Amino acid sequence: MFVMNAWYVACTVEELKSHQPLGRTICGRRMAFFRGVNDQLACVEDFCPHRGAPLSLGRVCEGQLVCGYHGLVMGCDGKTVSMPGQRVHAFPAIRSYAVLERYGFVWVWPGDAALADPALMPHFPFLESPDWAYGGGLYHIQADYRLMIDNLMDLTHETYVHATSIGQPEIDETPCKTQIEGQQVTTSRFMSGIQAPPFWQRAMQAQGLDPLAKVDRWQICRFTPPSHVLIEVGVAMAGQGGISAPDDQKAHSIVVDFITPETATSHWYHWGMARRFQVQDRALTHAIRDGQGKIFSEDLEMLEHQQSNLSLDPERKLLMLNIDAGGVQARRVIDRLIQAEKAAQSSPEEAAHAH
Amino acid sequence: MFVMNAWYVACTVEELKSHQPLGRTICGRRMAFFRGVNDQLACVEDFCPHRGAPLSLGRVCEGQLVCGYHGLVMGCDGKTVSMPGQRVHAFPAIRSYAVLERYGFVWVWPGDAALADPALMPHFPFLESPDWAYGGGLYHIQADYRLMIDNLMDLTHETYVHATSIGQPEIDETPCKTQIEGQQVTTSRFMSGIQAPPFWQRAMQAQGLDPLAKVDRWQICRFTPPSHVLIEVGVAMAGQGGISAPDDQKAHSIVVDFITPETATSHWYHWGMARRFQVQDRALTHAIRDGQGKIFSEDLEMLEHQQSNLSLDPERKLLMLNIDAGGVQARRVIDRLIQAEKAAQSSPEEAAHAH
Amino acid sequence: MFVMNAWYVACTVEELKSHQPLGRTICGRRMAFFRGVNDQLACVEDFCPHRGAPLSLGRVCEGQLVCGYHGLVMGCDGKTVSMPGQRVHAFPAIRSYAVLERYGFVWVWPGDAALADPALMPHFPFLESPDWAYGGGLYHIQADYRLMIDNLMDLTHETYVHATSIGQPEIDETPCKTQIEGQQVTTSRFMSGIQAPPFWQRAMQAQGLDPLAKVDRWQICRFTPPSHVLIEVGVAMAGQGGISAPDDQKAHSIVVDFITPETATSHWYHWGMARRFQVQDRALTHAIRDGQGKIFSEDLEMLEHQQSNLSLDPERKLLMLNIDAGGVQARRVIDRLIQAEKAAQSSPEEAAHAH
Repeated sequence: MFVMNAWYVACTVEELKSHQPLGRTICGRRMAFFRGVNDQLACVEDFCPHRGAPLSLGRVCEGQLVCGYHGLVMGCDGKTVSMPGQRVHAFPAIRSYAVLERYGFVWVWPGDAALADPALMPHFPFLESPDWAYGGGLYHIQADYRLMIDNLMDLTHETYVHATSIGQPEIDETPCKTQIEGQQVTTSRFMSGIQAPPFWQRAMQAQGLDPLAKVDRWQICRFTPPSHVLIEVGVAMAGQGGISAPDDQKAHSIVVDFITPETATSHWYHWGMARRFQVQDRALTHAIRDGQGKIFSEDLEMLEHQQSNLSLDPERKLLMLNIDAGGVQARRVIDRLIQAEKAAQSSPEEAAHAH
Repeated sequence: MFVMNAWYVACTVEELKSHQPLGRTICGRRMAFFRGVNDQLACVEDFCPHRGAPLSLGRVCEGQLVCGYHGLVMGCDGKTVSMPGQRVHAFPAIRSYAVLERYGFVWVWPGDAALADPALMPHFPFLESPDWAYGGGLYHIQADYRLMIDNLMDLTHETYVHATSIGQPEIDETPCKTQIEGQQVTTSRFMSGIQAPPFWQRAMQAQGLDPLAKVDRWQICRFTPPSHVLIEVGVAMAGQGGISAPDDQKAHSIVVDFITPETATSHWYHWGMARRFQVQDRALTHAIRDGQGKIFSEDLEMLEHQQSNLSLDPERKLLMLNIDAGGVQARRVIDRLIQAEKAAQSSPEEAAHAH
Repeated sequence: MFVMNAWYVACTVEELKSHQPLGRTICGRRMAFFRGVNDQLACVEDFCPHRGAPLSLGRVCEGQLVCGYHGLVMGCDGKTVSMPGQRVHAFPAIRSYAVLERYGFVWVWPGDAALADPALMPHFPFLESPDWAYGGGLYHIQADYRLMIDNLMDLTHETYVHATSIGQPEIDETPCKTQIEGQQVTTSRFMSGIQAPPFWQRAMQAQGLDPLAKVDRWQICRFTPPSHVLIEVGVAMAGQGGISAPDDQKAHSIVVDFITPETATSHWYHWGMARRFQVQDRALTHAIRDGQGKIFSEDLEMLEHQQSNLSLDPERKLLMLNIDAGGVQARRVIDRLIQAEKAAQSSPEEAAHAH
């Protein structure tokens, strides 16, 4: 169901306040996130070893998580530090998870912490560069996280789900191409000499370009495991080189989708957009975020209804068309990684081969 | 559980807009209703063969149902007509259902469409005659549809559930008579020389009769499969011939109950009243509908609580008294038809015998 | 799961109106409470033997419970008294339960009514003495009732859950002592020469004592089966004898907790406080009740979250520390009684030994 040994976005750095832990279920595991000594990030099982209260209902005092029920003090490593009037050395440890802070997000490794290599963190330089502006949000969606991957790897849905903003018939009419390179799956589509849809007309205007001019438009969706989808999107004045056109002839950005499974039929959807035009314009950042939030709420509704339909008959076969190749290939990468993790549990040697 | 080969009310004609499909689960099957070419009614499985999205979230364009996710175009027969950039001839067909428009309602045949004979539609001439006025509404009730049939085939409940409107002790005190004629079950009760209850006092007043005069009152409940209950009700000035009294000496109407199973423990209840007095008086139609809606909401509450009680111990035996004969006989008709349908699935010949 | 042969609080006397029955599930059994002839309390299964409607939706007429669906008249003993137009002598009886009115509450015995001895009612003289004032309320909590017993038998939680009212670090720092005497479990803690927490400062002020003076504080939690926890609490001016200090040197009261299981994961929590100071002061009674209600709502939240955590992995072992001894011992008493009841069902003789 889930790749466990991988970095997932748990929450934004902003969501995690200094003294208040945050409870969140990720890949089926209840976790409590908090800031330990020196604001060091920590994540432990959200289960007090004393009587099972959620530790996320407690408070952080001097870098330690204090259970809100009877005051057990939990360390960052899942070992009980102390408890009033008790000797705690024999208390059973709870699970702890590897965590990282990067790109404005808190990342967690739900699997074996010993394997949690920071070097395996994906690189998103545009999320830390001053040349880019970023805005985004979070949706909690009652659907298998893989339905969201399917959604994002097949943008023909924009024509129907997002008809009034980013959809246009030319998406449907233009074939896409899917390529696999190691664990990365890329689906791309290039449209030439078309009218920009409303969202991109506004972006062109913000860029000082004629919103009604003919444009070349591109969409390059990149899936990387466990469930990140980054999409290069943009329009350039027609005939100026498309994605390679000079900056003043185009408006382009990267749609950021960090998809974190919660349960088998729900996920946390961290969405956003990084752009390289008018990066100082905060009002534009807010306007784009609001527009994107509205667009993605249309996906949310569709995915939750799709999930209810699928749940009624989980064995029913679905079609896998050329437009679905991106999602299909992404699921294959996921399945291979899950198989490898299972194999590793029975035999550590096999696991080494799978990677 | 359900008779599948029969006509059920799916929705009112008004509910089904031109360009918007309507999703509804009937007899456990998710259906999408829409108007095809030339406004022809159509009903298909509410499941897009591409990725399982509900087709009812889509739109109707030029008489075809367009999936709101990726634009698959579905025909009235469950076969995919087209899809942008795809060859669709090998797409698996989805189920389609026979539908009919009659009496202001859309009717559907959830079973085998090949058996869906329009001649099997019941006849309700008063629903299309200018001599009658009709008003009604729809309730979605969390209870087995057969509990509603029981309710309507035993009107002694009016004394208790509807004490302030149509109930009166004389209903309880007057024995009823249940008769079976083929698949029709009739329970009737005649009361003589009584005071009319509030609802009928208002009807007498509307008719220009003395609301406090003694009346003869009748209730004739008719069940026909799969789950229609039509109830002739009325009062006449005492001694004028009861149900056969001249029109100016009585107020009478037909309570219309089209009960459509949704799941094993929920149903759609289309209720209404057709009357033969003051048929031009629209304000009276609205007043009656409001009153009836309030009365039937009392049944709704009772039935949902009864269902929760029964769900706790589904095997527990209930009593079957003389007053319950109508419901008991109606359930026998239903059970026989279900048995016949099962038999038909294993052997088509047996089925012919059962009918 | 539940001790069945014992007296539980069903509701307050106030909750049970003259003509309106009250439906409540206790120890997994749906019950309808009502006042029979001469206002005699009665309790029967909340299930009409006719068609399974909840009797609690009916009305009480002349001391008999009339089903709100078809008018079946139910007696206090679970036998049908009459029904319009029916001979009822062969109707199956429904369960009836022994009930008692005492201390302002209605008490019910969910087990075998033949064993329901009023002499087994616990004695709470302070609940009927004019020397004491009482105020309280009711919470419906989605958690195993034993989690509430644990909560009340280990007051170290006050330091964390109720930090702003009755909690203080000295509770944690002072060891408690747990004693078992027959079926009664007592956990007590005595603190000397401390500052009173906010709740007790207000009580001292109401008593005319200096709220900032040093005090001795005590907490004596007494569990008696099936699930009553009464807690003697108070403060006295330091060095005046603590719990034995003269009345004008202390403020003390008894926290009353009548815990009634509903299902395996929910219970009714009747909470209150009986006090022996300023007993005429109704405004104080209300103020205390409001304060206590707020405090206990903090427990409610913790217990419901604890229950969700435990439900995810019911087999997971919890710690049993010295502070948990009260709850652990109370659960042992409960388990022994449940075992004895099971044994009694297979062999009545064994049961006699267990008591």
